[in-house]
Amino acid sequence: MNELCRRSATDLAQLIREKQASACEVLQAHLARIEQLNPTLNAIVTLIPDEAMAAAKRADEAQARGELLGPLHGLPIAHKDLVETNGIRTTFGSPIYQDHVPAEDAIIVERLRRAGAITIGKTNTPEFGAGSQTFNRVFGVTRNPYDFSKTCGGSSGGAAVALATGMVPIADGSDMGGSLRNPAAFCNVVGLRTAPGRVPSKALGLAWSPLSVLGPMARNSSDLGLLLSVMAGPDRRCPISIQQPGNIFAGPLHRDFRGVRIAWYRDLGGLPIDRRVRTVVDARRKVFEDLGCIVEDAEPDFIGVDEAFKTLRAFTFAAAFGELMQSRRPDFKDTIQWEVDRGSKLTALDIAGAESLHAAYWLRFQEFLTPYEFFVLPVTQVPPFDAGIPFVSEIEGVRMGSYIDWMKSCYYMSLAGNPAISVPAGFTQEGLPVGLQIVSRAEQEFSLLQLASAIENTVGVCTGNYLFP
Amino acid sequence: MNELCRRSATDLAQLIREKQASACEVLQAHLARIEQLNPTLNAIVTLIPDEAMAAAKRADEAQARGELLGPLHGLPIAHKDLVETNGIRTTFGSPIYQDHVPAEDAIIVERLRRAGAITIGKTNTPEFGAGSQTFNRVFGVTRNPYDFSKTCGGSSGGAAVALATGMVPIADGSDMGGSLRNPAAFCNVVGLRTAPGRVPSKALGLAWSPLSVLGPMARNSSDLGLLLSVMAGPDRRCPISIQQPGNIFAGPLHRDFRGVRIAWYRDLGGLPIDRRVRTVVDARRKVFEDLGCIVEDAEPDFIGVDEAFKTLRAFTFAAAFGELMQSRRPDFKDTIQWEVDRGSKLTALDIAGAESLHAAYWLRFQEFLTPYEFFVLPVTQVPPFDAGIPFVSEIEGVRMGSYIDWMKSCYYMSLAGNPAISVPAGFTQEGLPVGLQIVSRAEQEFSLLQLASAIENTVGVCTGNYLFP
Repeated sequence: MNELCRRSATDLAQLIREKQASACEVLQAHLARIEQLNPTLNAIVTLIPDEAMAAAKRADEAQARGELLGPLHGLPIAHKDLVETNGIRTTFGSPIYQDHVPAEDAIIVERLRRAGAITIGKTNTPEFGAGSQTFNRVFGVTRNPYDFSKTCGGSSGGAAVALATGMVPIADGSDMGGSLRNPAAFCNVVGLRTAPGRVPSKALGLAWSPLSVLGPMARNSSDLGLLLSVMAGPDRRCPISIQQPGNIFAGPLHRDFRGVRIAWYRDLGGLPIDRRVRTVVDARRKVFEDLGCIVEDAEPDFIGVDEAFKTLRAFTFAAAFGELMQSRRPDFKDTIQWEVDRGSKLTALDIAGAESLHAAYWLRFQEFLTPYEFFVLPVTQVPPFDAGIPFVSEIEGVRMGSYIDWMKSCYYMSLAGNPAISVPAGFTQEGLPVGLQIVSRAEQEFSLLQLASAIENTVGVCTGNYLFP
Repeated sequence: MNELCRRSATDLAQLIREKQASACEVLQAHLARIEQLNPTLNAIVTLIPDEAMAAAKRADEAQARGELLGPLHGLPIAHKDLVETNGIRTTFGSPIYQDHVPAEDAIIVERLRRAGAITIGKTNTPEFGAGSQTFNRVFGVTRNPYDFSKTCGGSSGGAAVALATGMVPIADGSDMGGSLRNPAAFCNVVGLRTAPGRVPSKALGLAWSPLSVLGPMARNSSDLGLLLSVMAGPDRRCPISIQQPGNIFAGPLHRDFRGVRIAWYRDLGGLPIDRRVRTVVDARRKVFEDLGCIVEDAEPDFIGVDEAFKTLRAFTFAAAFGELMQSRRPDFKDTIQWEVDRGSKLTALDIAGAESLHAAYWLRFQEFLTPYEFFVLPVTQVPPFDAGIPFVSEIEGVRMGSYIDWMKSCYYMSLAGNPAISVPAGFTQEGLPVGLQIVSRAEQEFSLLQLASAIENTVGVCTGNYLFP
């Protein structure tokens, strides 16, 4: 692979800034990489090489005039196919929207472009982001670069694969039940579930809900910080915007972690966890101890969390698709039909009950984290599984009740609302990536970036250079 | 009345700080005032003079040792009977809770006490705050000090009356459909509906909902700022806390308003507005012009707002009382039974539809306010009405469809979510107070305090000194 595709986003931005590489050269290298690998992996489902090249030329011309477009000047990016892109097909992974071309950019896309990133296309996602397995009827399945027979996870699956293999240096994603963390874990990259309102989106539907968030994905924590510094910050169009400016994430990440108290998971209230995952995750406890952290076994009480999440998730799906499903039912996959059907039958008191459980859990979680600065647990309860099956139906002999039950280690954290990062923990004996999930106190994404950075110094980061050389 | 009861909170705090008055003297003056007027007005429904005197003594002793408890050191305060107070009866205006004594303070009470305020008791409110008319079966009706036959408004009615008559220099309240603004308008004082999350409350029930907020009530804008500086600021127990510290509201309020663009209401999308209210409010347009503001006729589009509010309000009531009503139905007033019944029948899609209308209106409102810094309108569509009727059933010949329909000028602003202040506008020919409602951009409470301060210099503030000398 071209050396440029191995570089971190931070390095690439510097190379361009210092005129050691042009935006056009960087783009060409990544387009070549996409041409080489994407037919096998199917990470990028819409590619706009001509428009991207025109944008790269404009970036180089601007620089020649002494203008830098922004902190992402000249960096190729692909956007998740769930976020709307002006003039670029956005399918949401649904046959209903297979020819949908939005007339405006989502706020996150607007910001990335304004910061100088060059949009090369869209990354694959399951239909409407439902399920942490990236396949849909429009584009098919996205494969895990570490084993083509395995899933890359989801729903930001195309993003994770494109990053892991050097097709792009930066990518965006979204996360309701784990969609920024699960694919990062399955593909050995870094994904950050942000605090609600950290990355604003335009008010629509359940605009005050804290469940679904947008965020960055990258190959290391510095790149993640660079990206978040551009995505984050208030926007007048988002009612839950956090008012802090994004540039608080741009700073250097060094920090002394001696004496920092960390809660280490036990079994997440009795969840089955694949022993291969446990082995890899538990071996990393020493990394935290070596950093000087005080690591203790401790968990919050997870009572009511599962019921609350499933009810609020079904409500969210019914709110988004209940009307459309009345006329286009067969065009939705069965798991979404199931979500919407359940959601549509909910009464006001069902929803209120779930909100009440949610509030109680949220409060317990914040109390739990008072003596600790971080909570550490596996990202997923299983390693990457067969790409031919839609979801995991059994873990360590325990049957899963629904298509999302195997995602509890992720969505339990979603409901807490605290930022959560997925960082590479290592590999199973079969060579499949495993992710370490770290949860911070409310709105403390920067502390996660700092801790991830400290861990990277021991565990290493994905450079893609051992994949498909 | 004792001179001390005429003073602003800011002045009183200074007098105490400078040892020109002790906390005990200030308390005694206010207790005497309560003794004189409360039997007629019924603003304060639970009084704890002995505990208050003990606290005032402790405050004086602390000061003698050179310790000041905080910015509200020695100021008597009464809390709305909807907020929980540790060891002090909190009835919510409901017979079900007539003997309820909480074991902990609400966050707002905790902060006020920690800042040195002396709790003297609780202020009256309609049952569970429902309806902008302060009466309930536990304590009866609270009367308007400007005309005993009229209502003081509500639901923070007791607070407004206590302030207007010098029973307390500061008070707290809450506002879902107008409860901090309507009683302030009816009693010639100042009330501020804050941004959601500005004054935190402990996660409970619909903890992410932006509809119900807590806030300050006072006799002038400086006192309001002093009070808000203590109430505001993040709290780990509130999931929607705004992270800004409260002390941003403590600064001086002077500002030059020349060139500031203001949108002036027309008819709020065709609402009937009592001509006496119109006359008083419209006469104040000149005040803004004299300040140098550019005042233009402009309104947002209010389509869908009424439906959204009524649905979300009914949902909120069902969420809060649906379960309790199953066993205690006769103990709820009929309007709450009506709310809960409607709310309980809502489906997930009804609630989702209302949330969607809410989000669309919110977005329109923010766009509407882009060229303007403020929107000015009447607080209420009517002046204070007969205390013997539960709600207004007709305005200017237009029949009202429900017990809250006359409150649209308030609750339309609640749904926008932007801070809204009620400032005295003057009096009808019969001598009844009328309020001016000013809405700022999102989270810009300080700009409202500044504008209110500028208006006070022309219009004057309530000093209570023409009431019951």
